[in-house]
Amino acid sequence: MACDSIPVSCCISCSPMTRETATDSRQDILRTAARLFQQRGYDATSMNDVAAALKLSKGGLYHHFQSKDEILFNLMDHAMDITQERVIDPVRGVADPEQRLRMLIRLHIEVVLSERDREITVMLHENHPLPPGLRRRINSRKKNYVHFMENLIAEVQRVRQSTGTVNPRAAVFALLGMINWIYQWYKPEGTLQGEQLAQQFTAIFFAGAFQ
Amino acid sequence: MACDSIPVSCCISCSPMTRETATDSRQDILRTAARLFQQRGYDATSMNDVAAALKLSKGGLYHHFQSKDEILFNLMDHAMDITQERVIDPVRGVADPEQRLRMLIRLHIEVVLSERDREITVMLHENHPLPPGLRRRINSRKKNYVHFMENLIAEVQRVRQSTGTVNPRAAVFALLGMINWIYQWYKPEGTLQGEQLAQQFTAIFFAGAFQ
Repeated sequence: MACDSIPVSCCISCSPMTRETATDSRQDILRTAARLFQQRGYDATSMNDVAAALKLSKGGLYHHFQSKDEILFNLMDHAMDITQERVIDPVRGVADPEQRLRMLIRLHIEVVLSERDREITVMLHENHPLPPGLRRRINSRKKNYVHFMENLIAEVQRVRQSTGTVNPRAAVFALLGMINWIYQWYKPEGTLQGEQLAQQFTAIFFAGAFQ
Repeated sequence: MACDSIPVSCCISCSPMTRETATDSRQDILRTAARLFQQRGYDATSMNDVAAALKLSKGGLYHHFQSKDEILFNLMDHAMDITQERVIDPVRGVADPEQRLRMLIRLHIEVVLSERDREITVMLHENHPLPPGLRRRINSRKKNYVHFMENLIAEVQRVRQSTGTVNPRAAVFALLGMINWIYQWYKPEGTLQGEQLAQQFTAIFFAGAFQ
């Protein structure tokens, strides 16, 4: 199920004039599927619906994904790739732990607020049943991110010589809750916007977790 | 769609010997539907499935609820009743604003951790499409709770003469995120449990929001 196992670029370059080639990438399929799942509900969306929305033949869709489970797994896996590339990889380059955590909070909020990323990453938090093997693979990636943050919070507590009132495990779930809950209430036209939101949540979390 | 428009108690008292009477209460129907929606997905659960799980005839179910939308709306409305009865009403009796907020945090976390309440209240946060009129009624109750908390946070900031670093709107969404995200990670067998969780989140939030 690795991305490179399917020669998307070959298909596109070999037959450039057919309709299928224009949307025949896994990324397009995942993005369209994510939109349909959110508009109609995951269970109410069929493989036929996904194919029709992309103006693909059923065969064209099944060439890439054998089932809706496979689409959902790849959506969630892609959401974790986004988190890796937009949040984890950039902050790894920051030497100072406090600055690393501040940057992590800002970048994670940016991913949640980005309209393009949001339609993919929100799927991580919907409770659709996945087959156990696929569910475990996603949960393992989620847990790695939680541990990465938890270790970083513990490191900042050591640097700041925190009193030990707050344990890093409670703090990491508090922070993930603050950030991931944004999906539930955020409106682009609302009063609380990007930079201000990151600044406010950083202020609340830092004063809260590093007493 | 008000609860008192359907004579549940009359049905039960009139024909006590039939199977239908045993489970023929709206509460039982809502609880069973909530469980099925979470196990199988909302869209994949039919009215027939709900009736079968309750060993009700289809007519018996339709006597109470005309559609799955009506069940979902009533589930969400019941979840807001639980919030009102278990959180909002009890804290209204507390004169001191700081104690009122501490109690609100503890009681709201208790509702989330209560196995019995959780299967109902988690439905508030699933993004299933409801008809616009019903969606508006639920959103209005949610907004009332947000405003109640926001006003309380602002009041505590005044009493504590906070510096104004944190605005109450950002703080209320941070707090709701911390608490409502518990649905996503909490395990009864985990290391972070009820009383400790309430104490940790209260410590983080108070230091964070009342600088």
